[in-house]
Amino acid sequence: MTEVAGYCIEDLSEGMEASFSKTFTDADIVLFAGVSGDTNPVHFDAVYAETTRFGGRILHGMLTASLISAVLGTRLPGPGAIYLSQNLRFRAAVKPGETVTARVRVASLDRARCRVTLACTCHVGETLAVDGDAEVMVPSRAGKGAAS
Amino acid sequence: MTEVAGYCIEDLSEGMEASFSKTFTDADIVLFAGVSGDTNPVHFDAVYAETTRFGGRILHGMLTASLISAVLGTRLPGPGAIYLSQNLRFRAAVKPGETVTARVRVASLDRARCRVTLACTCHVGETLAVDGDAEVMVPSRAGKGAAS
Repeated sequence: MTEVAGYCIEDLSEGMEASFSKTFTDADIVLFAGVSGDTNPVHFDAVYAETTRFGGRILHGMLTASLISAVLGTRLPGPGAIYLSQNLRFRAAVKPGETVTARVRVASLDRARCRVTLACTCHVGETLAVDGDAEVMVPSRAGKGAAS
Repeated sequence: MTEVAGYCIEDLSEGMEASFSKTFTDADIVLFAGVSGDTNPVHFDAVYAETTRFGGRILHGMLTASLISAVLGTRLPGPGAIYLSQNLRFRAAVKPGETVTARVRVASLDRARCRVTLACTCHVGETLAVDGDAEVMVPSRAGKGAAS
C-alpha cells in the first residue's frame, strides 16, 4: 500500500508553494483526445489550424490545466486531499513541444472546516497560459476533514 | 482540411443543448495520469483507496471534467470556438467502469462580443458528478469574434 504523504491542515500555511513541469508532445494530445473524446480539429488538423488565429495546432486547454491536478494530487496538498472546485481562465494557447510549469500556492486556509484555497498558474516560460483557483479539503490529525 | 462545422454567434440561442457520453475504464485513468502527471494513489492503489471515504479507486476529477471540453470542442459550439474560462465543482466521485454524460446548455449570449456562457454538467445516471460554467468566444458571419 502506498505510504501516503499528503499534508494535513495542521501542516499548511499561507504562501506555501509547489510546482510541476512537463513538456507536452503530440503523444499527449492524441492520448488526451482519446480519454476525453475532444477531437476538435484545432488540435489535429494542421492545415485547418493554420487558418485560425493560433497559426497552427494547439493543446487542449484542459490538457494544459491537467498539470494543476498533478500538483494538487501529488505535491501540495498531495494524497488525501479531496478536490472540491477549480476555476480556470485560458489566457494563452500552448503549442505541441512547449514545456508547461504548473504552480500552486496556498492562498487561504479555513482550519475549522479543513478547507484550503490555492492560487494556480500554468506558464510557458514567462507567458501565462492558464490561471485560476482550486479549493480542496485536506485531512486533519484530529481526524476531521478529508481523513479516511 | 477538416470542414469546420461549429456554430457562429448568429446560430446560437439560449437553451440550446448538446451532450456526449463515455464509459471511463482503467485505461483512461492510466492514460490521463500519463498526460497529466497526476499519480495520486486514490486513482491507482486499490488497497490504499479502500481506506478512504471513497471505498475504492476513483477517476481523476479533471478526467471526468474533460468530457465537457469534448462537448464544447466538437458539438456546441464546436470547432472555431475559443475556450475562455471554465469553472468546475466536483460533486461526487466517479468509479472505473462508470458511464459519464456531459451536457452543456447555452445559458446566455453576448452577441456584440461574440461570447457565450454555457451551463455544464457531468452525470453518472441521476448522480451529479461535476457542474460548472464555461465561457467561449465563437465566430460570427460578419467576421468578428473567434473567426480565423
